[in-house]
Amino acid sequence: MSETFEQFRARREAGNELVLATKNLGIKRFMSLDKVAYDDGALPRKTKELMGLVGSMVLRCNDCIDYHLDTCVQVGCSKEELEEAFSIATLIGGSIVIPHLRHAYMSLEFLFAEHEKKAK
Amino acid sequence: MSETFEQFRARREAGNELVLATKNLGIKRFMSLDKVAYDDGALPRKTKELMGLVGSMVLRCNDCIDYHLDTCVQVGCSKEELEEAFSIATLIGGSIVIPHLRHAYMSLEFLFAEHEKKAK
Amino acid sequence: MSETFEQFRARREAGNELVLATKNLGIKRFMSLDKVAYDDGALPRKTKELMGLVGSMVLRCNDCIDYHLDTCVQVGCSKEELEEAFSIATLIGGSIVIPHLRHAYMSLEFLFAEHEKKAK
Amino acid sequence: MSETFEQFRARREAGNELVLATKNLGIKRFMSLDKVAYDDGALPRKTKELMGLVGSMVLRCNDCIDYHLDTCVQVGCSKEELEEAFSIATLIGGSIVIPHLRHAYMSLEFLFAEHEKKAK
Amino acid sequence: MSETFEQFRARREAGNELVLATKNLGIKRFMSLDKVAYDDGALPRKTKELMGLVGSMVLRCNDCIDYHLDTCVQVGCSKEELEEAFSIATLIGGSIVIPHLRHAYMSLEFLFAEHEKKAK
Amino acid sequence: MSETFEQFRARREAGNELVLATKNLGIKRFMSLDKVAYDDGALPRKTKELMGLVGSMVLRCNDCIDYHLDTCVQVGCSKEELEEAFSIATLIGGSIVIPHLRHAYMSLEFLFAEHEKKAK
Repeated sequence: MSETFEQFRARREAGNELVLATKNLGIKRFMSLDKVAYDDGALPRKTKELMGLVGSMVLRCNDCIDYHLDTCVQVGCSKEELEEAFSIATLIGGSIVIPHLRHAYMSLEFLFAEHEKKAK
Repeated sequence: MSETFEQFRARREAGNELVLATKNLGIKRFMSLDKVAYDDGALPRKTKELMGLVGSMVLRCNDCIDYHLDTCVQVGCSKEELEEAFSIATLIGGSIVIPHLRHAYMSLEFLFAEHEKKAK
Repeated sequence: MSETFEQFRARREAGNELVLATKNLGIKRFMSLDKVAYDDGALPRKTKELMGLVGSMVLRCNDCIDYHLDTCVQVGCSKEELEEAFSIATLIGGSIVIPHLRHAYMSLEFLFAEHEKKAK
Repeated sequence: MSETFEQFRARREAGNELVLATKNLGIKRFMSLDKVAYDDGALPRKTKELMGLVGSMVLRCNDCIDYHLDTCVQVGCSKEELEEAFSIATLIGGSIVIPHLRHAYMSLEFLFAEHEKKAK
Repeated sequence: MSETFEQFRARREAGNELVLATKNLGIKRFMSLDKVAYDDGALPRKTKELMGLVGSMVLRCNDCIDYHLDTCVQVGCSKEELEEAFSIATLIGGSIVIPHLRHAYMSLEFLFAEHEKKAK
Repeated sequence: MSETFEQFRARREAGNELVLATKNLGIKRFMSLDKVAYDDGALPRKTKELMGLVGSMVLRCNDCIDYHLDTCVQVGCSKEELEEAFSIATLIGGSIVIPHLRHAYMSLEFLFAEHEKKAK
């Protein structure tokens, strides 16, 4: 069966530890750039995370989709907003994106359930 | 281990239910467009499903490959025909497609076995 | 030499006329979907156009970049906002996006000059 | 301005001459494979050329689209058939394919005009 | 959980057996071309395997990455050399490559451990 | 007609000036990372430029191909070495790369002619 969202988080964490332990300067700097890319600026973080989500969907990367969905829910995106991002990404990227759309909906179920639980 | 074809079908079904329950009009319409895109027209459905298969292989999406392989076998494509589609897709898309070619052959084993069983 | 922005607009217009004259229902409906996809909704049009821009940059399509840049400037995106979108798209898509980043800056020069002229 | 179809043919021809003059065995063999890939087999050449067209559209390569459109018209594809291929390719590949759809319609105008002239 | 490196090798082997059993001449020839593509020539095999690794990373195919990593370690690439290849691939392909970078580091842990064990 | 290599260089230069004049920190840093990525390290610059060439070909970006071909010739790659890189890139990326292979051969004609002239 496919991975749960929590297994994804653990796998991502373990992988990042290996990557960030590197002495390779190019990789270190690239990871640093990525870390701050979505911070508030002329555009708010929320818009940037939604851009990250759309970029991840049209390029069809489930791990990237899950990461940005996670942060999108954290910064307060509503289901309606996320679905509009899904809709644009599916239109731009085509039906080849549909498997990732299915994946995104499944992840969203987990994330909104978790979010509600925390809110209590 | 990797997913069986039947697990793929169940996962796809569950995901589609979530997607199709959306109120987002853009997603609803996109899914409707996709639903009728492979119907008979100036080109027969079989040719269209084979096109869908080639598109899925060159874009390297196993879920899409499995879906189109499933319908290709249902509409009566022979193994020789499917392999010619595989061959063209691998040539167009290059050796990066080979892992998906391996996947397609594995799926095909299941699908032809299932098809034969039903035929009896 | 490469095309001017106005030549791009004319070429795009001429192509769209041919496409929209089609009797093919699938193409007609796809074009209709695309026409309304960026309208205000739960997310404002500006955010959606910026998403369209990021999607176009990571997928490396100059015609799509130019179209979304044009609408982004029309709906009031500032240079700083557009550059943050460029920055995220280049990070997500990598150095292979740089030629499109150069192209986007060139188009932006034209678009802001045109915008200022109109504002007078 | 953009290239005419005849300029494309000349540029393609000139490039192929350089490629085919190579002594590199890998390139030589790859080009040979490509040369026979669309010949009649279990599937007729026409179906294979349409597959080549769909593959070229979803991967967004105008030179490849033009080459396959040229051969598609030669082997007798009707406008309706080609538009169904366009429709499927645009759906699979998404709105990022639209600039290539516009290009394909423009090429088709030239190709059908040329085809009619020859038929007289 | 995700597949171990040894499970990947077994799955790849099983898939290759199915592919190589084909009677389709196009597939047979493509697989033959691929088999000799990385042999020593004007460029040494090591450089070619590193090229294969970079190509696999920017095109984001874990199975291809794992295969080339395996051969890279066999032909004697050091960790520093592999990380420079990772760094260039991540820069070219962008942050969308990061999940594959994480995967590559995990595979490398296994491969260097295995390599050391054999060396004893 | 298509651009000459010298027109490409001028267009690239003009675009880079615009990009590098930005105050956007993300873009500035990304461009800096790119600038040093191909310097000698555990792997020599020549190998890295060849990797950049292969990455550019499989991702099908003519501007990137031309830039790396230019530097490859400068750092002393022979025609045989470059053709082995072409061969691997075409195999990995498939026949969709062929138009870029044609382009690369045309650029190479210019670059080797220029190189010889300078050598005198």
